[in-house]
Amino acid sequence: MPSPLRVTVWNENVHERANPLVAKIYPNGIHGCIADALKNDKQLDVRTATLEQPGHGLTEKVLDETDVLMWWGHAAHGKVEEAIVDRAIKRIWEGMGFIALHSAHYSKIFKRLMGTSCSLTWREAGEKERLWVCNPGHPIARGIDRYFEIENTEMYGEPFAVPTPDETIFLSWFEGGDVFRSGCTWKRGNGKIFYFAPGHEIYPIYFNPTVQLVLRNAVHWAAPDGTRWIDSCPQIPADKAAEPLEIKGPRMHKEGEEGFR
Amino acid sequence: MPSPLRVTVWNENVHERANPLVAKIYPNGIHGCIADALKNDKQLDVRTATLEQPGHGLTEKVLDETDVLMWWGHAAHGKVEEAIVDRAIKRIWEGMGFIALHSAHYSKIFKRLMGTSCSLTWREAGEKERLWVCNPGHPIARGIDRYFEIENTEMYGEPFAVPTPDETIFLSWFEGGDVFRSGCTWKRGNGKIFYFAPGHEIYPIYFNPTVQLVLRNAVHWAAPDGTRWIDSCPQIPADKAAEPLEIKGPRMHKEGEEGFR
Amino acid sequence: MPSPLRVTVWNENVHERANPLVAKIYPNGIHGCIADALKNDKQLDVRTATLEQPGHGLTEKVLDETDVLMWWGHAAHGKVEEAIVDRAIKRIWEGMGFIALHSAHYSKIFKRLMGTSCSLTWREAGEKERLWVCNPGHPIARGIDRYFEIENTEMYGEPFAVPTPDETIFLSWFEGGDVFRSGCTWKRGNGKIFYFAPGHEIYPIYFNPTVQLVLRNAVHWAAPDGTRWIDSCPQIPADKAAEPLEIKGPRMHKEGEEGFR
Amino acid sequence: MPSPLRVTVWNENVHERANPLVAKIYPNGIHGCIADALKNDKQLDVRTATLEQPGHGLTEKVLDETDVLMWWGHAAHGKVEEAIVDRAIKRIWEGMGFIALHSAHYSKIFKRLMGTSCSLTWREAGEKERLWVCNPGHPIARGIDRYFEIENTEMYGEPFAVPTPDETIFLSWFEGGDVFRSGCTWKRGNGKIFYFAPGHEIYPIYFNPTVQLVLRNAVHWAAPDGTRWIDSCPQIPADKAAEPLEIKGPRMHKEGEEGFR
Repeated sequence: MPSPLRVTVWNENVHERANPLVAKIYPNGIHGCIADALKNDKQLDVRTATLEQPGHGLTEKVLDETDVLMWWGHAAHGKVEEAIVDRAIKRIWEGMGFIALHSAHYSKIFKRLMGTSCSLTWREAGEKERLWVCNPGHPIARGIDRYFEIENTEMYGEPFAVPTPDETIFLSWFEGGDVFRSGCTWKRGNGKIFYFAPGHEIYPIYFNPTVQLVLRNAVHWAAPDGTRWIDSCPQIPADKAAEPLEIKGPRMHKEGEEGFR
Repeated sequence: MPSPLRVTVWNENVHERANPLVAKIYPNGIHGCIADALKNDKQLDVRTATLEQPGHGLTEKVLDETDVLMWWGHAAHGKVEEAIVDRAIKRIWEGMGFIALHSAHYSKIFKRLMGTSCSLTWREAGEKERLWVCNPGHPIARGIDRYFEIENTEMYGEPFAVPTPDETIFLSWFEGGDVFRSGCTWKRGNGKIFYFAPGHEIYPIYFNPTVQLVLRNAVHWAAPDGTRWIDSCPQIPADKAAEPLEIKGPRMHKEGEEGFR
Repeated sequence: MPSPLRVTVWNENVHERANPLVAKIYPNGIHGCIADALKNDKQLDVRTATLEQPGHGLTEKVLDETDVLMWWGHAAHGKVEEAIVDRAIKRIWEGMGFIALHSAHYSKIFKRLMGTSCSLTWREAGEKERLWVCNPGHPIARGIDRYFEIENTEMYGEPFAVPTPDETIFLSWFEGGDVFRSGCTWKRGNGKIFYFAPGHEIYPIYFNPTVQLVLRNAVHWAAPDGTRWIDSCPQIPADKAAEPLEIKGPRMHKEGEEGFR
Repeated sequence: MPSPLRVTVWNENVHERANPLVAKIYPNGIHGCIADALKNDKQLDVRTATLEQPGHGLTEKVLDETDVLMWWGHAAHGKVEEAIVDRAIKRIWEGMGFIALHSAHYSKIFKRLMGTSCSLTWREAGEKERLWVCNPGHPIARGIDRYFEIENTEMYGEPFAVPTPDETIFLSWFEGGDVFRSGCTWKRGNGKIFYFAPGHEIYPIYFNPTVQLVLRNAVHWAAPDGTRWIDSCPQIPADKAAEPLEIKGPRMHKEGEEGFR
């Protein structure tokens, strides 16, 4: 387990500058609020990055030094450059943890990791949400009772078009009668992925102490626990085969050649 | 279960025209050989499509009338248009089966469904491959004994960088000492996906009767069994909520508005 | 797909005889009510079996002729003989579908298939339950809108201690504020398993038309689709190996001997 | 992560006393050899337990103080008492890691965790086995190259009748032409489970340095990472419901009563 654990909190940082209500709730941005919450954990080394920075703040160096990447996006999914998405996904395959927050269900990076549409239903009425813990022994639920509540939330509801999660950590109950798999995990390559639904920009959800606890727990859970490895799809020459081997047939590729990608 | 089951065999059809050895083995193309093998099954209604056709032969109409899509590609992955990939993936999410053959592990469509690099190791030596059945009761293995062999094959070996398969149907043993998960299934949306490794263009593998049996079995297994459904991520207005609900908070979106994508 | 599809509805049939309220709701037993609901589907060949019959009504012959077994139990889990559980589980591994209803979460057979405690929380207050469809395209949800409701139900709530389901088909919302994964699938051997939570004995839940529709859908989904296969853990003699092989080391077992179980 | 990590190596310890060849290879028992290998890791606190000890050496206290349990059994599976199996499984559900070795595929405890027959094919010819790493970045494969070899092994081959593993870490190639999923993981409750196939008693396999490395890696991987939690299936009284709730229907159970198990 890396120590300290290096976390980068990424935010598109759009609503905070365009909408006075959001600006008032999050004067330092959603990323600023989350970073503060994480800094309460002395094992974490926290930085932030935003869309308008060069390379969206996610240079090769930054990603190389990131153990867990947290992602908040909504209005500007389409403005995230493909090259940066590629770069971040490569690091996830190598083992960097990835935590997708709220409307990041529709981010390019999350959709590409899932391979599904990631659609859901939604309603913005400031209703109450109650998040139930599906497994009280799971590290992401550490310190949380049977459930916790968010007084005013945007409803995200089923059907949630994702591949079957490896684990469902939270299920949400909504005042308006809906339900949602609001905390789910997957793995892609060596990267652990956690999707956590709460976080609508117009309510002060990231100031909720239990939401903050979940984020800290999730960072520890998503930390890399293996060695960095990334595919290269190498050709193994016949004379390097594990068993003695003669070339018997015609060939398309020359020795040492790379395959088509 | 649709009856007859409508299958479209897609092939980039490049090597067959560029390489005399391949042309000699597959005078009607790999797609032609596979289509003939499928036509032995009278429950199947088989057509083919290739890269050089308008829309790569995969128009809205063709895909709309396809229950299972089979895909062979290698040298021309990069020439497949994104819009066609989007179109095919949308149909897979709706329930169309998808069978990726051999070097299609690196096709745009397969990589986007998996969310991983899909890399593997490989060697072209004409060596022997033996495919073991991991579950003799599985419909894809119907009619196959404990194993079957391919005399001359290209080796595809581990590590195979895919998400954990829902089921591993075949594991391959290679003369040169390698192993591979050569028959695997996943689901994305309502589409059933089967990856089947054999099929190097320079050996007559698709004439192998057991390989042909696997393809026919796989088509039946991958057939849609639900109703067509595709996400639309709808806003559910507060007055349409399942429970009586008053709007309590400020809002970002107007009633009836679409969300950001 | 077998045709007709042979279904056996098993019920412990205890409350119906001991409790006048239950007897009044289900004069022909819960199994009788469910069997009637299935018989509306002319593709199904339906029979029932109950605890008090010889071999609990599940003789070798009955199980051999059963494609899908449905199970209702509650007060008498402990009275089900281990030998009958073994017999039924062997058939599930061979491919017989298994549908566990309501309190069958604690049946011997379901717990042995899951390998977990299968515990949950519960409350008996006649409250309202709303079951949301997590995937409207899934065959088990065919013909069902976004959700359906049960006016009076027993609450079954999270945490539900089962292995991660292969698919979550229904999620329940409860008037009292709880949630539950109320429709889930798994596979063990070749047997498809569906757990469906509604069905408390003291409310007329199995008369609900949508509940009946789910049961019919589930039977079709759970039907065997492969060939019957069951393990035998055979010793493969060295001279029957796929590759030429000389015996090189000392041995514990004689040729032809069976292994330890 | 507990520190130090407390490991209990359990062995039936039968062959070592009954068979002079095994006794010569493992004068301190298979458990003794494995314990020595683990003790090279100073983060581990290692003890052993065997069948013939009171409670098979697995008293409540021992299990309570065990973070990871390793299990070797073969000839005496039937002699392991059900009560001890229940006790160990309860601890696994609470989060204790479990590592099943070689012929423990047929142990009571492993079969109950899997819910399948756990059968496989086998051959005792002292042939060569090559274990391929399916994911070089996985913590269980840390420090291992693309593959490692065991000169003389018992062949365990497909079909291996287990539920789909969460991850396949190793795939084995055998000289005699077979293949096997020889390193697999699952989760039951909060317990992480690893099955590792090598370890036939009549070859000195547990002295192989790479096998020892896998065992040390696996212990770290299987360590508990959450809080202890075990089901109790509690009744939640209506007046303790999360939402205000009136009792509306007739009831089977009294307030405070326990459910049927």
